[in-house]
Amino acid sequence: MHFSDFDNSRLQSQLSGERFLVTYELFGSEAACRTAAEEICVEQSVEFPTVVLPPGEIPGQILGRIESFSQAGEDIWKAEISFCAETAGEFTQFLNVVFGNFSIKQHVRVAKIELSPSLYQFIRGPRFGIEGIRDLLQEQERPLLMTALKPLGLSAADFGALMRVFAENGIRIVKDDHGLADQKFAPFKERVRYCCDAANAAYEKTGKRCLYVPNVTAPFTELRERALYAKECGAGGIMVAPGLTGLDAMKALAEDDEIALPVFSHPAFSGSNVVNRQGFSVPAYYGTVMRLAGADAVIFPNYGGRFSFTKEECLGIALAGKEPLQDLKTMIPCPSGGMQIDRIPGMLETYGKDICLLIGGGLFTCGPDLEKNCRDFVDAVG
Amino acid sequence: MHFSDFDNSRLQSQLSGERFLVTYELFGSEAACRTAAEEICVEQSVEFPTVVLPPGEIPGQILGRIESFSQAGEDIWKAEISFCAETAGEFTQFLNVVFGNFSIKQHVRVAKIELSPSLYQFIRGPRFGIEGIRDLLQEQERPLLMTALKPLGLSAADFGALMRVFAENGIRIVKDDHGLADQKFAPFKERVRYCCDAANAAYEKTGKRCLYVPNVTAPFTELRERALYAKECGAGGIMVAPGLTGLDAMKALAEDDEIALPVFSHPAFSGSNVVNRQGFSVPAYYGTVMRLAGADAVIFPNYGGRFSFTKEECLGIALAGKEPLQDLKTMIPCPSGGMQIDRIPGMLETYGKDICLLIGGGLFTCGPDLEKNCRDFVDAVG
Repeated sequence: MHFSDFDNSRLQSQLSGERFLVTYELFGSEAACRTAAEEICVEQSVEFPTVVLPPGEIPGQILGRIESFSQAGEDIWKAEISFCAETAGEFTQFLNVVFGNFSIKQHVRVAKIELSPSLYQFIRGPRFGIEGIRDLLQEQERPLLMTALKPLGLSAADFGALMRVFAENGIRIVKDDHGLADQKFAPFKERVRYCCDAANAAYEKTGKRCLYVPNVTAPFTELRERALYAKECGAGGIMVAPGLTGLDAMKALAEDDEIALPVFSHPAFSGSNVVNRQGFSVPAYYGTVMRLAGADAVIFPNYGGRFSFTKEECLGIALAGKEPLQDLKTMIPCPSGGMQIDRIPGMLETYGKDICLLIGGGLFTCGPDLEKNCRDFVDAVG
Repeated sequence: MHFSDFDNSRLQSQLSGERFLVTYELFGSEAACRTAAEEICVEQSVEFPTVVLPPGEIPGQILGRIESFSQAGEDIWKAEISFCAETAGEFTQFLNVVFGNFSIKQHVRVAKIELSPSLYQFIRGPRFGIEGIRDLLQEQERPLLMTALKPLGLSAADFGALMRVFAENGIRIVKDDHGLADQKFAPFKERVRYCCDAANAAYEKTGKRCLYVPNVTAPFTELRERALYAKECGAGGIMVAPGLTGLDAMKALAEDDEIALPVFSHPAFSGSNVVNRQGFSVPAYYGTVMRLAGADAVIFPNYGGRFSFTKEECLGIALAGKEPLQDLKTMIPCPSGGMQIDRIPGMLETYGKDICLLIGGGLFTCGPDLEKNCRDFVDAVG
């Protein structure tokens, strides 16, 4: 077999000519980066020696194509590379074209992803978006306040009691800590039941909704079941760590009409994609990719906390969550990771009002009275 | 609420004292690395300010614990940290304890993972292992030969024809290229049907089995269905890229008794976990983690090819696939990525006979006659 009987005319009729664009940042000399850009074209499409490719549409259309190559800094180059839309007809394969094998290469980073129209056939984005979450809370203007149920080791009843304190004292969104799974000292179902009941009891008392967002991150065979159980109990959203479940698993939960809850993405186990000078830029991954994967809200480590993201990177996530993308809804940023009440004015200045202020452990350390700490958090937002 | 009503005695009765061990490599000064090790203990367990933890079993057992801290090189330190087994009762949460939030930290890498006994309740490892794959092929001694169906753009019928050439000329395992998903020019079902038929036809002619291993990497809702379809058609294995599907999704397919096929893991979209001085060591990720996640065979970029892994790292994968781990089966290494026939003697010297030699594009470039190239590949192994 020498590809001589390859039916090129049929392939031609199956391709529309539509292409989507990925911008890669390459680090090194111009020559090395040009070579790397050419390698991306091959590795992320045909992954086959170009000298023996069947002639016609495979090199002509299936192969990646450098659309531009320019310097972006000292030893930093940008290559815009386009790919045939029909090679990426589902989300897992789309991600594979963007950065499948090249994830194993050093000195290269996905800086930006620009979809072409037909890809929106399988990408629906957030179900609720910022507006949808605000509608659920009947809170159109103010920044949203969020905290987390901690620490691991408490019982389900303890978490229910904590939930009630938060909900009765003005916190509008309460998520599980991402380490709360289905441990026997606070089993998932028991915890979700206690916390949903607590949220309802608080609503009856205060007249204000507080969304309880359980962590449904779970093994493949249990993921949907946990999300459905959360729905059944009246949870206000679900949290998923797509680094642990796979990005498409989060997308499937977001698109599932029986679940139909706001999805909060958590960065656990995904950080290696962004913290090196390799992988994805912070805004491309926690902004664009998470939104494409259906997150209504993205939790990420804020600048100046326990982690290393810069202010510019964090703002980039927020902007990527709002930039116009076909008719996709927006995604609310939830900067977190060592935040304190005194950081709020600066965060509001950076992000504006469409932000979910997430203070976790810090809410327990700013004073001995947790109720008062919650009210101080509410007051700090004004 | 001040944790005063926290029922410490109940938690105590729920903990066995069993701990598992993770060795982290830390990069920087001794002081910075000691601090980072202490942070790991907190971040990967309670993720809560230790000063306000409820007293008793949470700091005593739930919190991570530094078991040793030592220098491993200039500005390289190793910390062995143990975690409470009951905090990690399912695979997703186990991975979360190992490296969930710390994946977002720089200058730290998981170097080794040592499970404790109870974790094997949810970790079954490979279903077939090296022995099982050898039994399927009735090939107990020789290294196994493998290639890939390429390039993207061919039709399902073309791939079937290629499959037949490979299978009739001595290649024992043929996988889909990892970019073959469900594109309309070679739809999954059509491709699998053609290739399984070709493998069967070749078996009738040669009397030797060739395993066709389709790529079942797919969106969450279609993954199991594709694997079951492959099974139904008589595929010899399935390939999954857990970077795209999630590690636990691969594990679920491996453990699924209706599928019951050898699982080949592909590194697409997972490389950022290992190619930086952050994340996981190559053997910990492509060796240990893949085996725990049920891979019977692990495809990875060999040293000296198009990628940057060192010989030591690659050998580390092979060794991690064979080291005694409770009663887990072994995992066969499939070094790949720009391999050529002339590399075979060196590879056999490095890895020994329990290797799956994967030559993809190189099989098309070493001569004009693909049949002859296949036979040369077979002959080179001796």
